[in-house]
Amino acid sequence: MADLAPDVRDFLGLVAYVQLEIYESASRAVREAPSLQSKEVLSHAAGIALGRYQEFAAELRRRHLDPAEVMAPYRSGIDRFVARITPGNWSEHVLLVYLVGGLFDEFFAQLALGVTDKYGNYAATLLREDAGRGQIAELLATQIREHPQLGDSLALWGRRLVGDSLLVARSALIPSDNASRDAEQIEPVFTELIATHIRRMDALGLTA
Amino acid sequence: MADLAPDVRDFLGLVAYVQLEIYESASRAVREAPSLQSKEVLSHAAGIALGRYQEFAAELRRRHLDPAEVMAPYRSGIDRFVARITPGNWSEHVLLVYLVGGLFDEFFAQLALGVTDKYGNYAATLLREDAGRGQIAELLATQIREHPQLGDSLALWGRRLVGDSLLVARSALIPSDNASRDAEQIEPVFTELIATHIRRMDALGLTA
Repeated sequence: MADLAPDVRDFLGLVAYVQLEIYESASRAVREAPSLQSKEVLSHAAGIALGRYQEFAAELRRRHLDPAEVMAPYRSGIDRFVARITPGNWSEHVLLVYLVGGLFDEFFAQLALGVTDKYGNYAATLLREDAGRGQIAELLATQIREHPQLGDSLALWGRRLVGDSLLVARSALIPSDNASRDAEQIEPVFTELIATHIRRMDALGLTA
Repeated sequence: MADLAPDVRDFLGLVAYVQLEIYESASRAVREAPSLQSKEVLSHAAGIALGRYQEFAAELRRRHLDPAEVMAPYRSGIDRFVARITPGNWSEHVLLVYLVGGLFDEFFAQLALGVTDKYGNYAATLLREDAGRGQIAELLATQIREHPQLGDSLALWGRRLVGDSLLVARSALIPSDNASRDAEQIEPVFTELIATHIRRMDALGLTA
């Protein structure tokens, strides 16, 4: 990933805003949760994403940068993405938190390893720590077992989510002013993201 | 407060669910926040409430109790209260987080001191730590300064919120099966809650 290395400032701005969005999305799923047990699982994941956002914002401050200013350029692109993937019901919302959160954590962990700054390794380690999604998978698997008719629509929704997420990841790697970036550099990243996505769907018994 | 002492199990169930609600409410205010600066302030407060919820739930587990089970009896009463105080706009929502969060933290801190269990003192200390509301007050004060017409409607909304919050606090102290509880025991608690509420409104330049 070294050739794809973003500036550490850009990396922190984008990853901080994405973690803030993962926290917000998980928190909305807490609000709509039908049981206290599912609130527990989702609020745990929300808290981890919020903690990561706070750590990245703190690192920007340690570098005498204003997090709001550094995140601002990424806001409209991510907000448009979030608006596009509005879930139709609570199960779709939980699947979104599970799949999109997982995909972006892995994407940014790979990106972090290419950052030419010692913070990159720390960020990658942080992003690969447990994000509470194992329990989200269990929650979803239970729902699918109890309501088998959910399986087909969630499988379709999962394909929709991975498509949109990969497009956003691609636009983060290839800004429009650098459309000539070599496909050979980018391909392995996406191959890996798709492989981990398939593992996440498998864990639910869904066809990716 | 010793005479008003709830059982530690009941205390933990109710305070845990209330902190979960404060976290959810603050998180909704993050979602609707117009600027990244205000998202920062509100998500910080949301994170503290979530951390407290997680600590109280963990304490229940340390006592081999299931948090979901212990919280369940309090859910419908609190949910009805939350549904009743739906804010009309974002400023009202932020005022709600500031006032209701502050009032309940103080109420439960006082209640905790009466719990006949050494955890009570720890819980009171935790609930009196900084909950990030100083920055929320600054956020609100700035808005009121920039839009002076907000002052009147927020003052009215603040009176509405304190009224409803005190009624909920009262019903937590006086369950319907114990309506004879001595008013002399309860009065000082409410006098203190109202005094701290007035200080919170003063900090915004609003008439309580």
